[in-house]
Amino acid sequence: MLENKPNIVLANKDEAYTVVGTRPPRHDALDKVTGYARYAADISLPGLLYGALLRSPHAHARIRSIDTSKAKALQGVKAVVTSAELPDLSGKIADLGEGNRANYNFMSNNILAGPKALYKGHAVAAVAAVSQIIAEEALSLIKVDYEVLTAVLSAREAMKDGAPILHEGANTLAGPEARPPSGAAPAKPTNIANRLEFKLGDVAEGFKQADVIVERETHTKAVHQGYIEPHSATAQWHADGNITIWSSSQGQFMVRDQTSTVLGIPVSRVKAIPMEIGGGFGGKLVVYLEPVAALLSRASGGQPVKLTMSRTEVFEGTGPTSGTHITVKLGATKEGRLVAAETHLVYEAGAYPGSPVGAGTRCILAPYDIPNAYIEGLDVVINVPRSVAYRAPGSPAAAFAMETAIDEMCRTLKMDPIEFRLLNAAKEGTRQATGPVFARIGFVEVLQAAKDHPHYHTKLNGRYRGRGVASGFWFNASGPSAAIASVNADGAVSLVVGSPDIGGTRTSVAMQLAEVLGIPVDRVKPTVADTDSIGYTSVTGGSGVTYKTGIACYEAAQDIKRQMLQRAATIWNIKPEDVEYTKEGVLQHKSDPNLKFTFAQLAGRLNNTGGPIVGRATVNPRSPGNAFATHLADVEVDPETGKVYVLRYTAIQDAGKAIHPTYVEGQIQGGVAQGVGWAINEEYFFNDQGRMMNPSFLDYRMPTSLDLPMIDTVIVEVPNAGHPFGVRGVGEVPICPPLATICNAIYDATGLRFSELPMSPSKVLAALKAAGKNGA
Amino acid sequence: MLENKPNIVLANKDEAYTVVGTRPPRHDALDKVTGYARYAADISLPGLLYGALLRSPHAHARIRSIDTSKAKALQGVKAVVTSAELPDLSGKIADLGEGNRANYNFMSNNILAGPKALYKGHAVAAVAAVSQIIAEEALSLIKVDYEVLTAVLSAREAMKDGAPILHEGANTLAGPEARPPSGAAPAKPTNIANRLEFKLGDVAEGFKQADVIVERETHTKAVHQGYIEPHSATAQWHADGNITIWSSSQGQFMVRDQTSTVLGIPVSRVKAIPMEIGGGFGGKLVVYLEPVAALLSRASGGQPVKLTMSRTEVFEGTGPTSGTHITVKLGATKEGRLVAAETHLVYEAGAYPGSPVGAGTRCILAPYDIPNAYIEGLDVVINVPRSVAYRAPGSPAAAFAMETAIDEMCRTLKMDPIEFRLLNAAKEGTRQATGPVFARIGFVEVLQAAKDHPHYHTKLNGRYRGRGVASGFWFNASGPSAAIASVNADGAVSLVVGSPDIGGTRTSVAMQLAEVLGIPVDRVKPTVADTDSIGYTSVTGGSGVTYKTGIACYEAAQDIKRQMLQRAATIWNIKPEDVEYTKEGVLQHKSDPNLKFTFAQLAGRLNNTGGPIVGRATVNPRSPGNAFATHLADVEVDPETGKVYVLRYTAIQDAGKAIHPTYVEGQIQGGVAQGVGWAINEEYFFNDQGRMMNPSFLDYRMPTSLDLPMIDTVIVEVPNAGHPFGVRGVGEVPICPPLATICNAIYDATGLRFSELPMSPSKVLAALKAAGKNGA
Repeated sequence: MLENKPNIVLANKDEAYTVVGTRPPRHDALDKVTGYARYAADISLPGLLYGALLRSPHAHARIRSIDTSKAKALQGVKAVVTSAELPDLSGKIADLGEGNRANYNFMSNNILAGPKALYKGHAVAAVAAVSQIIAEEALSLIKVDYEVLTAVLSAREAMKDGAPILHEGANTLAGPEARPPSGAAPAKPTNIANRLEFKLGDVAEGFKQADVIVERETHTKAVHQGYIEPHSATAQWHADGNITIWSSSQGQFMVRDQTSTVLGIPVSRVKAIPMEIGGGFGGKLVVYLEPVAALLSRASGGQPVKLTMSRTEVFEGTGPTSGTHITVKLGATKEGRLVAAETHLVYEAGAYPGSPVGAGTRCILAPYDIPNAYIEGLDVVINVPRSVAYRAPGSPAAAFAMETAIDEMCRTLKMDPIEFRLLNAAKEGTRQATGPVFARIGFVEVLQAAKDHPHYHTKLNGRYRGRGVASGFWFNASGPSAAIASVNADGAVSLVVGSPDIGGTRTSVAMQLAEVLGIPVDRVKPTVADTDSIGYTSVTGGSGVTYKTGIACYEAAQDIKRQMLQRAATIWNIKPEDVEYTKEGVLQHKSDPNLKFTFAQLAGRLNNTGGPIVGRATVNPRSPGNAFATHLADVEVDPETGKVYVLRYTAIQDAGKAIHPTYVEGQIQGGVAQGVGWAINEEYFFNDQGRMMNPSFLDYRMPTSLDLPMIDTVIVEVPNAGHPFGVRGVGEVPICPPLATICNAIYDATGLRFSELPMSPSKVLAALKAAGKNGA
Repeated sequence: MLENKPNIVLANKDEAYTVVGTRPPRHDALDKVTGYARYAADISLPGLLYGALLRSPHAHARIRSIDTSKAKALQGVKAVVTSAELPDLSGKIADLGEGNRANYNFMSNNILAGPKALYKGHAVAAVAAVSQIIAEEALSLIKVDYEVLTAVLSAREAMKDGAPILHEGANTLAGPEARPPSGAAPAKPTNIANRLEFKLGDVAEGFKQADVIVERETHTKAVHQGYIEPHSATAQWHADGNITIWSSSQGQFMVRDQTSTVLGIPVSRVKAIPMEIGGGFGGKLVVYLEPVAALLSRASGGQPVKLTMSRTEVFEGTGPTSGTHITVKLGATKEGRLVAAETHLVYEAGAYPGSPVGAGTRCILAPYDIPNAYIEGLDVVINVPRSVAYRAPGSPAAAFAMETAIDEMCRTLKMDPIEFRLLNAAKEGTRQATGPVFARIGFVEVLQAAKDHPHYHTKLNGRYRGRGVASGFWFNASGPSAAIASVNADGAVSLVVGSPDIGGTRTSVAMQLAEVLGIPVDRVKPTVADTDSIGYTSVTGGSGVTYKTGIACYEAAQDIKRQMLQRAATIWNIKPEDVEYTKEGVLQHKSDPNLKFTFAQLAGRLNNTGGPIVGRATVNPRSPGNAFATHLADVEVDPETGKVYVLRYTAIQDAGKAIHPTYVEGQIQGGVAQGVGWAINEEYFFNDQGRMMNPSFLDYRMPTSLDLPMIDTVIVEVPNAGHPFGVRGVGEVPICPPLATICNAIYDATGLRFSELPMSPSKVLAALKAAGKNGA
C-alpha cells in the first residue's frame, strides 16, 4: 500500500552523485523476507537454558522478603536470582558528559526490583531452567512477601501534598534528559524528580504587546512503541569473568555499557553481539533482560541463558512514552506575529525519573521565532512502567499542545495556517528559548512546499470532513561512530559498522562509501559488528545513523582511496600525486593514459603488492542538523460512531539530502502511521490498581493498513553543512505533527477542539453528542 | 606431564620488554577448558538440516552414473547433490603468484568425485535431511554404477610402464608446491604429476673429492595429522546468492576463496565464519565439506545444512601426508667436510597432484653448506586419499633420509655428530641448492646449545640403550595479514585479527600489541573475525601467525599510539610532538610534568574529544625467518617385544624471539610427540584393494602420554631482523628431527639401521631376530 513515489523538491542542482540519491535494494532484504535473518530469539547454543521472570502483581509495594528455596529445589531449575545478586549502585551518579547525568541505581532497580516494586509487571525475580515450561513452573514456587502500598497513577495525584512517595529520600536525579537548575536535593521527598526552566526575553512584556492570546491545556496518555519483536536476550558468563550477550537492541555498545554498569564490571568484560532488530523506535535503548540473563548464567555455572518476553511482558514490563499534561499560552499581534509564549510541561516518567520532558522543552517552541518565552518542565514519577524513548521522545505531545494552539490562533486571527507559520518560522540565526541558535534549517522551505502542494489546494467537499495542518520539530542527535572497510580481491568492499540496522542503514551508509569509491553499492557488503569488533558506536537513535555512521563510511572510503592511490603509484613506480582517482573508481596515471586500473583490477593485485587494504574511520560529529516537518491531513468523522477516517495525508519534510529516498519516505510514512495511531486510538488503559487492562495487540489498538490512506511524502532538501552530502536525520520528526494535524482536521470537520488523546470513537462520539452534532 | 621449564639461551641482553617474553594465560583458556568454546559442530540454526556423504567403496573406479531419485523421494530428505551440481573447472589454472599455480578442477573433483572415484572413501554424493538418521538412510538409496578399475597403491607401481593411469590425458599440473621446470604436458599419460630438479656446483666433481661416500634409501608411510576435531561445516545459501559458512579451519579466507572457486562465484559472495579449531597441523588448509554443504543448502531452498565427519571419514576422506621414497648419497672428506650430495625424492601425492615434494627438496640439504649438490623430486599420484600439508610438510621424511645418512657418515668418520654438523652447518650467506641464500640464521647456535646441554654429556648406561642426534629445517612461510584494534573506555583494547588461533596466537599477537602500547596483555581482548569483518589474512600455517599477524598488531598499535598522542595534544592544546608516550603507556607533556594521562585515563575521554580511536594495519611481510632444530633422544629397545621406549628427549630450537615461551615450548613438545609417533607407530595400513585397515584411533596408533617422556626444550634466540621483536616461526620445525633422532638412537642401542618407518615393535623385533639379537 505504501508505494514509493519520487517526490523531492529543492534538491541541490549542483550535485552529480552516482549512488547517493538512488534507490537500490536493501542488502538485508532477501534474508529478511525469506525468514533467514536471525533475531535475538533465534539464538541456540549448546547447553542453553531458558529463563522466565516473576513480575510484581502490585503497582506499588514494598518487598519484605523473597523466598526462592522451593523454586531452586524444583528439578530442572538451574538458578534463581533476585536483585540481591546485583551490586548496590546507590549514589553512583554517572557523568555522561554535556551536563547529562544518570542515576545507575534506578537503572538497576528497574531491571530487578530493589526495595520496592514500583509498577505492576515490575520484574522481581528470575529463573533459569532446562526448559521454558519448568522455568515458568518455578516462578509459582517463589514466595514474595509484599507490603502493598497505595499506587499513584497520574502526575496530578503524584504532585499533591500527601501523595504516596515512590522514592522516599532517594536522590531523584533523572536520566540524560534532566538538567536540574541546581544540583540540590529536594527539601522533602517528592514525586517531582526534576524541574527545568527556560526564559527568553520578557514574557510579561511580550504578552502586553499581544493583540490576541490563546491558552490551551492538553493531555496525552502513555503509548507504546509497538515494535514487532519482543525483547529477547541470551547471555553467557564465562569462567574467565567475561560475558557474551546476544540480543536485539538499538545499540550493542549501549547493551554492553548498561549491562557492565548494572553488574558492576568493566565494559571490556562484556561482548554484546547484535542480532537483527524487529523494531525499536527508542524502546530498545535500555536493557531489561541482558543483566538478568547474565546473572542467571553465572548462577548456573556458566551455561548460556535465554530470556524472551511475551507481548504482555513487553507492554507491562518495558517503557512506553510518558503521559503528558501541557499548557500553552500564546500571544500574537493582530498581524499574526507571535510575541510571547508560556508553556508548562508535566511529563509522567513512570516508576523512575527520566521522562523526555527535557526534549519536550527543547522542541515545543522551537519551530517559531518568538522573542519572549517561558518554558517550565516537570518530570514526575508515578506507579506505571518507567517511560523510555519513543521516536522523537517528548516532541509529539509538545507539538500536539503547541500546534493545536497555533491552529486556534490562526482561526482567531482568520489567517491561513501555513501563512501564519511562514510569518513566524524559525530560520538560520533564530535563537531558541532553550538557548541554541539555529544553523541553516529548512522550515521555511518545508512550509513553502506544503503551501505549494496540490493537496493544500484541492477542495474538500462533504459534511464532517475537514483538513488539518501542523508542523513538528526534532533536533536530531549524534554521537561517536566508526567504520572499517576491507577491499576484497574481486573488487567488493566489506564494510563493518557498529550501528544496528533498523530502517535500512546498512545500505544508506554503504551508499556513502560507494559514492566516494565510485563503485556500485551492491559491491559493498555491510556487516553490523559486535562490541569487540568495531570502534565505539553510539546508538541507532536520534535519527543519527545515516548522518554519523555515514560520515564514518565517507571517511573510511577516503582512507581506502588514499591507500589505493599509493598502491597504484607503487606498482607504476611513480608518485601518488601523479595518480588520479576518477568518479568511476578508475585509478589512472595523470599523463600516461595507458596506465590505469579499475578499482576491481587493483583490488585483485593487493595481496601481492604490499598486502590487503583496509580503510578505517572514527568520528564524533556534532552537527546532525535539525529536522522540520509539516503535515496535511483530510479526515472524515463518522457522526454515528465517532470514528475518524483519514482520507488523505501528505507529509512534507526537510531531509537535508536523501541518501536513499525510499528509506526517507519509509521513515516518514512509518512516523505518520504511528502518529495517527497515537492521535486516534492508542493508549495504556490502567485500572485504579495500576493494572494495564489492554496488554495485548488485540486490545491495544494500533493502526492497521485499513486505518490508513496512502501517505504521500515530499522530501525537501536543504543540505546540512555538517555532513559531506548534506544529510539531516529523518526518522523521528515525522511522528511529531500527526497528533495536532489530525486534531486540527477534526476541528475543521466538526468544530470540536479535542485536548486529550486518543481521539477515539467513544470520545469523539461523546463530544459530538454533547455538542448535539451526532447522528445528523 | 609436559611441565614448562624456562630454558632460554642467547636471549638478546639489550631487550627490556615488559610483555614480550612473559608467560600470561591464554585469552581463550577458560572457555576451552570449561567446554564453552564453540567448535564447528556446535553450530545450531533455525531450520538446520543434517547432511551425510556417500563415499566410494572402490579405490579406483569410473562412475558411469548416479541415480539419486530414490534417495530424493525418502521422506525427510531435502536435497541430494553430486558433482553434476559443480561447475566444470577443467583447464582453470590459477596463478597464485610467485610461480605457484593450482588446478582447480582437481580441488573440485576431490570434493565430489567427477568422472572417477580415485580412492576408497572419495565423496561421491551428498544428502541433506531433517535428521542425521534420515540423511544416512538416504545414502543407501543412492545407486552408483561403478566400473571398477585396478588401483595403484604405491609410487613404485605407479611409475611402472603400463601402470593404470589415474588422470588419463589430464593436465597433471599440481598445487602450490609444484614448480615444473617446463610448462609442457607430458608426452604420454603418466602418474608422475610433476618433476623438480635443482643443481648446485658440480656433483660428479664433488664426489671425486670425497674420501667417504654414504648412500641410503628410506621409506615412509602416509600418516595423518590426527587432529582431535573432525571436519565440520555448516553452510547457508541465501536467497540473494550470498553464502554463509561456519566451519573450523586454518583460514577462514582459505575457506572463502576455495569455496568460491569450487562453486564458481566471486569471493565476496561467501562469508566464512571461523569457529574454534580442534587442531589442524596442515590438514585444515583445504576444504572438503563447505562447498557440499553450500550446494545442499541451495538445493534445499536456502535452509542451512551441517556436515560433520566421523573419525573414519577423516582418515579415509581427508589428506594425510605423503608416503615417501628417498635416496641420499653424501660425500665427505676425511676431515668431515661435506663436498657433495645427491638426493632423489619420490612423494606419493595420493589421488591428485600436490604432494609436498617441493618443500622436501627445499629442506633436505638446507641445513648444510654443501658446495656440490643435485636434488630431484617427483610428485606421483596413486589411489589413496589426496595428501595435504602436515606440519612442515615434506621436511620430516626428508630429514629422516638425510639425518640418518649424516649419522652413518659420522659413524664412518668416527666423528661426533654435533661436531660434524657444526663443521658443515649453513649460516648467514650460505647458498642453498634450491637457490636462496640464508639471511641470519641460528643453526650454529642451536648445535652449540645441544653440544652444551647436560643431556649430551650424561652417560647412558645399559644394554639396548642408545642416544640419537638429528637436526631439522623448515623455511617458514608468510602472507598477508591484518589487524584492527579499538580502544575501550576502560582502557582495554579490543583486537580483531583474521588468524584462527590454534596454538595460542590470540595471546602471542595480543602481547605484541600490548608491548607497544605499554599495557598489560590481559587488557587486550582478541577476536578472530569472519571474512567480512577483517582484512584479508593468509592461513594459520607456515609457522607464520605470530610473525605476520604479530607485525600487523605491532603496526596497529603504532597507529593507536599516534592517535593517542594526537588526542592528548588536542586536549592539552599543544603539538603532538610535545607529548611523550612512555613504555608504561603514559602520555605526558614533555616539559610540564603535571600534564599526563595513563592509557586508561585518556581512553575514558575519547568519545567526547573527537570520537573513539581505532588502529589498523595491513601487512604482507616477507621475512618469516628460517627455523632450525636439533634433538637429542635416549631410547631403550625391548629385545623381547621390539618396543622402543623413549627415555629422555631434549629439543633445542631457534625461535628468533620467543614472544610467549610457554607456547614455543608447547609447539616444540607437540612437534616432538607427533614426530615420535611417526617414527615408532603411525602408518596408514592399506590392504591390496586400497582399503585402509586401521581407520580409527583404536587401530591407528598415535602416541599417548604413556609413550612419551617429559620433552625437555631449549629455546635459542637469534633474532629475525625481519620482525620488530625478532620472531621466527616455531611451530613446524620440531617435527622434522624426531624421525631420524629416534632411528639414530635405535642404531646406537642395537646396531640396527632402519630405513623404513614406522619402526614398530613387529618390525624392530623382526630385525633383532634377523640379527640374532632378540631375547638376549
